[in-house]
Amino acid sequence: MRTATDSAVLVREKLAEYGAATQARMREYLRGRPRNPEFEELIADYPQRGGRALRASLCLATARAFGAYPTDALNSAVAIELLHNAFLVHDDVEDESEERRGRPTLHQRHGVPTAINVGDALAILSLRPLIDNAGTLGVRLALRILEEAERMAHESVEGQSLELAWRQHNVVELREVDYLQMVLKKTCWYTTIYPMRIGALIGTRDGVELDRYLRFGFFVGAAFQIQDDLLNLLEDEGRYGKERYGDIWEGKRTLMLIHLLHAASTEERARLSRVLGVSRAERTSEDVSWIRERMEEYGSIDYARQIAHGLAGAAQHEFSVACADLPDSPDKRFMEALPTWVIERS
Amino acid sequence: MRTATDSAVLVREKLAEYGAATQARMREYLRGRPRNPEFEELIADYPQRGGRALRASLCLATARAFGAYPTDALNSAVAIELLHNAFLVHDDVEDESEERRGRPTLHQRHGVPTAINVGDALAILSLRPLIDNAGTLGVRLALRILEEAERMAHESVEGQSLELAWRQHNVVELREVDYLQMVLKKTCWYTTIYPMRIGALIGTRDGVELDRYLRFGFFVGAAFQIQDDLLNLLEDEGRYGKERYGDIWEGKRTLMLIHLLHAASTEERARLSRVLGVSRAERTSEDVSWIRERMEEYGSIDYARQIAHGLAGAAQHEFSVACADLPDSPDKRFMEALPTWVIERS
Repeated sequence: MRTATDSAVLVREKLAEYGAATQARMREYLRGRPRNPEFEELIADYPQRGGRALRASLCLATARAFGAYPTDALNSAVAIELLHNAFLVHDDVEDESEERRGRPTLHQRHGVPTAINVGDALAILSLRPLIDNAGTLGVRLALRILEEAERMAHESVEGQSLELAWRQHNVVELREVDYLQMVLKKTCWYTTIYPMRIGALIGTRDGVELDRYLRFGFFVGAAFQIQDDLLNLLEDEGRYGKERYGDIWEGKRTLMLIHLLHAASTEERARLSRVLGVSRAERTSEDVSWIRERMEEYGSIDYARQIAHGLAGAAQHEFSVACADLPDSPDKRFMEALPTWVIERS
Repeated sequence: MRTATDSAVLVREKLAEYGAATQARMREYLRGRPRNPEFEELIADYPQRGGRALRASLCLATARAFGAYPTDALNSAVAIELLHNAFLVHDDVEDESEERRGRPTLHQRHGVPTAINVGDALAILSLRPLIDNAGTLGVRLALRILEEAERMAHESVEGQSLELAWRQHNVVELREVDYLQMVLKKTCWYTTIYPMRIGALIGTRDGVELDRYLRFGFFVGAAFQIQDDLLNLLEDEGRYGKERYGDIWEGKRTLMLIHLLHAASTEERARLSRVLGVSRAERTSEDVSWIRERMEEYGSIDYARQIAHGLAGAAQHEFSVACADLPDSPDKRFMEALPTWVIERS
C-alpha cells in the first residue's frame, strides 16, 4: 500500500522530471528570436525564475498515461507555461504585487508600460509551440489544441474580470459559491482542466470525450488555489516568494476573507469594508495585521483549510470515476496523488 | 485617366463597404459568449467606437484581387480588427492616453487593471475567427494564417518595446532610420504587411511568395503613421478623436520631434530633454505649446510631410513592381490608391 509520503515523493519526482524537460524546450523558444536582446531578456525574466511546472507536468502526464510518446505533448506543455508567465506578469500589474518568486515584479523593475508589453509578448510567444505542433501531431490535432487553448484563455480572463470587479467596486457581499465560480474560471481552467484536456487529446489523438475531466480539474484546481492563498498568510516572506500577507495588502477576495466578512461583527465588518475600499497605498500595516488576526480569531483559516480538504477528497473520488479506464502507470499515479499534494505542499 | 479625387472616392467607398461587412461579422464574435454581460460590454467598447477598418479592408481587397470569394477572408479581417483594438487598449494604458476615438480611454473609465484584462480578452478573441477559418479554408491554410498572425503580433510588440524604451530611458539621440525601423515593426507589420500577406495567402490558397509585399507595406504603413502623427499636431481636438497635441503630452518620439531634436539650439535641446524626461503629469501645457511652436519654427512639420510624401511615392513604385501580375480590378485599384490616400486623409 502506498503511503502519503510515497505519493508526495512521486509527485515531486514527476514535477522535477517534466519541469526540467519543459524548461529545456522553453529555452529554445525564448531564444528563438535574438534580434532584440534587451527585449528577449525581459521576455525570459519570469520564465527563468522557475516555478513548479505543475501545469506542464499535468499535461505531459495525462498524455503519457494515455500512451503518448514523451515528446508528443512537450510543445503544448511549453505553451501552457509561457501563457502562465504572461498571466503572472499582467496579474502582478493588475494586483499591484511587489514580489514574484522572491524577486521584485516586472513592473516594479521596469514600469507598467513595459510589463504590459512583455506580458503581451509572452502570450504571443505561447502560440508558437502550438503552431509547431502541426509538424509532429498533424495540422488537424494542432488546430484542435489551439481551439482548446483559446477557450481556456477566455475562461481565465473572464475569471479575472470577476475578481477585478469585486475589488474595483469594493464588493463585500460574497458567498463561497461566488468564490468557487471565479476560481473555476480564473485558476482551474488553465491550471488543471486544460492541461488534462490537451494531454488526453494528444494521448488519444482526439479520441476521447473531454468534459469528463471538468469535475476533477475543478476540485483539484480550487483546492490548489485555496492552499496557495493559505500559504500567502502562513509562510515566511523569503520562503513563499511573495511579500508577507500580500493578498491582504491587495484586497484580494480569498475564501478566508469572505469567511471573515460573514463572521465578523457589524463594527468589524464596517472597518473591513473601509480598509478594502481604499487604494493599496492607503492601507496600513496595522490594517493588514488586524485583518490577519481577525482571520485567526474567527477560524477563517481553519475553515478554508477544511474546504480545501473537502475539495481534495472530492477530486480523489472524481479521479476514480473519470480515469477508471486508464491502465495503471506512474503517470496515472502522479495524477491520482495530486489532490493530496496540492493541499499538503508548503 | 483617374484623378486624385476619383482615387479618394474609390478608397472611401471600399473602406465603407469592407468596413461594414467586417463590423457585421465582428459583432457576431463579440456577442458569441454572453455568459458575462458586463465583461462582454467592456470587450465590445473599443470595437464599437468604429474606425476606418483600413487593415480589414486591405486584407479583403488583396484576397479579392487574387480572385477569392467575398467571404473567404472575412474572418481574417475580423481577427485583424479585434487584435488592433486589443493593441489600442494596451497602448492607451502604456502611453497614458486620455482619449480614443473621441471618448475617454478604457483605463480612464474603468481603471488600469480592467483595461489590461480587456485588452487580453480582445487579443484572445481575435484567435477565434482564425481558428474558425478551418471550416471554410481548410485546416492547413487556417494554420498558415495563424503562423503569420503570430509573427505579425511579435513584430508589433517588439516595435512597441523599442518605443517604450525610448521614453523610459528618455532617449533623445534618435535618427530617422531608428524611427523608420520602429514603425516598420510597430505599425507596418500589422497595418499593411500582414493584411496583404494573408489576403494573398487566402486569394491564392498559399500559392504566392509573400515577402514581395514587404516593401510596399512598409512604405505605405510608414507614410500612414507619419500622417497619423501629423494629424495629432494639426487637427482640432473634437475632429481627430484624441486630446489636442496628445503625442507631445505623451513624449512620443515622432518624426517631427526627432527632427526638432536635431534642429534645435543647444539650449532648446536641453529644455526639450528636460521636458521629455519628466512624467506626463509633470509636463505643463506651456511646455507642450512651446514644443509645438518650435516644430513649426524649425520646419519639423514640413519635413515630416515631405518624408511621408516620399514614402508614398516609393510605395506607388513598389506597388507596380509587386503587383504587376495582378489583373485589373476595383480591389487592385483600391490598393494602388492607398499611398495617396494615406497622406491626403484628414
